[in-house]
Amino acid sequence: MKDLAIQFGAKLRDKRKTLGISQDKLALLADIDRSYAGRVERGEVNITLEKAYQLAEVLGCDIRDLLP
Amino acid sequence: MKDLAIQFGAKLRDKRKTLGISQDKLALLADIDRSYAGRVERGEVNITLEKAYQLAEVLGCDIRDLLP
Repeated sequence: MKDLAIQFGAKLRDKRKTLGISQDKLALLADIDRSYAGRVERGEVNITLEKAYQLAEVLGCDIRDLLP
Repeated sequence: MKDLAIQFGAKLRDKRKTLGISQDKLALLADIDRSYAGRVERGEVNITLEKAYQLAEVLGCDIRDLLP
């Protein structure tokens, strides 16, 4: 299931970059640690549904857009 | 965000019942603890994306069908 985290992270990163938001800013907006944001994007974290929703909200998208 | 877990749990339960699968069987199929399955359905667990996918797979549905 490691693929899942990697795919989610890649989609998150794509979306963030499309919006021109830095990783630091994403972390700040989503109220998560800066290093945690990086780990999520690299697919190193088994993220909770709650955090995934939080990130989607900050990016102004539907969580479905971030799912593999 | 507690609502999220409750809504996910309710959708999971609905789907499981529609398929006529017991909670015990769901737990067995998804390789999770029986009591954990109950807690997920009651919205007491902040479930990971990975587990959510696992449950959707066992129920033969798309994870999007289980999301609020």
